[in-house]
Amino acid sequence: MEVGLVGLGKMGFNLALNLYEHGVQVIGCDPSDEARKKLNKEGIQTCSCIKSLVEKLSGKRIIWLMVPSGEITESCISEIKELLKKDDIVIDAGNSNYKDSMRRAMEFQQRGIRFLDVGTSGGIAGARNGACLMIGGDREAYEYLEEIFQAISEKDGCLYTGKSGSGHFMKMIHNGIEYGMMQAIGEGFQVLEKSGFDYNLAEVAKNWNHGSVIRGWLMELAQKQFMLHPGLKDIKGVVAASGEAKWTVETALELESPVPIIALSLMIRNSTLEEDNFSCKVVSALRNGFGGHSYVSLGEENK
Amino acid sequence: MEVGLVGLGKMGFNLALNLYEHGVQVIGCDPSDEARKKLNKEGIQTCSCIKSLVEKLSGKRIIWLMVPSGEITESCISEIKELLKKDDIVIDAGNSNYKDSMRRAMEFQQRGIRFLDVGTSGGIAGARNGACLMIGGDREAYEYLEEIFQAISEKDGCLYTGKSGSGHFMKMIHNGIEYGMMQAIGEGFQVLEKSGFDYNLAEVAKNWNHGSVIRGWLMELAQKQFMLHPGLKDIKGVVAASGEAKWTVETALELESPVPIIALSLMIRNSTLEEDNFSCKVVSALRNGFGGHSYVSLGEENK
Repeated sequence: MEVGLVGLGKMGFNLALNLYEHGVQVIGCDPSDEARKKLNKEGIQTCSCIKSLVEKLSGKRIIWLMVPSGEITESCISEIKELLKKDDIVIDAGNSNYKDSMRRAMEFQQRGIRFLDVGTSGGIAGARNGACLMIGGDREAYEYLEEIFQAISEKDGCLYTGKSGSGHFMKMIHNGIEYGMMQAIGEGFQVLEKSGFDYNLAEVAKNWNHGSVIRGWLMELAQKQFMLHPGLKDIKGVVAASGEAKWTVETALELESPVPIIALSLMIRNSTLEEDNFSCKVVSALRNGFGGHSYVSLGEENK
Repeated sequence: MEVGLVGLGKMGFNLALNLYEHGVQVIGCDPSDEARKKLNKEGIQTCSCIKSLVEKLSGKRIIWLMVPSGEITESCISEIKELLKKDDIVIDAGNSNYKDSMRRAMEFQQRGIRFLDVGTSGGIAGARNGACLMIGGDREAYEYLEEIFQAISEKDGCLYTGKSGSGHFMKMIHNGIEYGMMQAIGEGFQVLEKSGFDYNLAEVAKNWNHGSVIRGWLMELAQKQFMLHPGLKDIKGVVAASGEAKWTVETALELESPVPIIALSLMIRNSTLEEDNFSCKVVSALRNGFGGHSYVSLGEENK
């Protein structure tokens, strides 16, 4: 089978190798010369634009998008929509918002093009050696491609989740859970670090990975990171958020399903992005106002 | 080596079998006839009180406590303290508060008795087949027993954590993290359940256990529970808390190390224990007060 893979970043590059290794005829597509050359070295042919990709593909065309969600995905999809014909298949394997995926599925359906929204987890290692796939959308398209999906994912790590949007919805929730789990782990290690006991945090994580209740991949990553970065002395506690937890919270509010842990985890990340915190300035000013408590000044000119 | 194991509940019974299987001469001790008989059937001798247990042990005596923390542990330790002699070893493998363990270590030390505070994770299966042990306290006692500790734990699941209290402190934090991780998982599945998509939650958990970022033992337990209890229809969302998360929060406040996720996870559990919620009554009453919003009445007599 022939697959046109759009996006040869870290995820796309590794996914291309994974597909290729499993006998899929991959044609990679990326505007970056560097990204294309890297893949050419692995013996995989490439092209620089979606138009020529579509031209290179024959028969029932399959386009697999592995590009950042939002504008880039939207622009790729707009272009693809005009180029494909009935029964061709489009796979969006990025972290798109499930509402966008539902809309796009409708738009494709009007043209007879089949669309799958695929949540992809497992990071770079997963893309290369066995991903976790959550696949929503056109069932016939899923069945047509099932063998490939199974081949490039972990055993039992490929699930058809139902109608359009359900794959990206499930991946959104996966990431929301991930935020909460990571923040709980972070808080625990911080207390250990401040405890006055003499813990080796890499050894703590290693211990917890062998028989404890909280063992799992995140704890394995913690172990590796504490080994690579002793005391995490070279890492600043600034944490970006890539969208899925925000969507989880928004969706939860729509459904009136409380997600306080996920929401708070996201807000904690947000608070780390600010140099200073206006809400805490207000609290400090009010304490000064009623009790004369001193505040930390930003210099005379700011008083 | 000979070990007196006090407490033959679910954890103690399985630990006894684990020790016995690894060549340790176990004498079980429990006031319950039933618990003793169950262990006798496995070919392990027992006795009903600590006094006779101490009399049965010869040479350097080793007493391993696997009893509920708090009063029961305190009363066992008070009794043991009067019966043991210099260089005997006491192991508290329950979930004691690390401050109690630090105090008890001092009290034992004054009598020349060696004391280890051992956090034990991995549940019943771990106690039986390979626990995760976090061991603080007397280093010589640890070294004397290291071979046994290693034998009954998972490979790499046995860690000497340093001075007295550090084993139970680390176990306390482990449980605090566990609360946060579990609550995040719970929230995520609730949104899936309310989503309007047609997810099979056991299949979702299974998928996430194969290659996803949030794979781990808790997700494996979720998979099993969703299979055993479809839709969790037979389980009420009432969740007790056994103390360690509360101590984590108290300790974090003492150290001024914020643990909002762990604290909130504990408070969510606490809120499930109440039939009705006074804070929400207040909010409902205030809404009624300013905007005439209706409230849910407990019947005319309560209005």
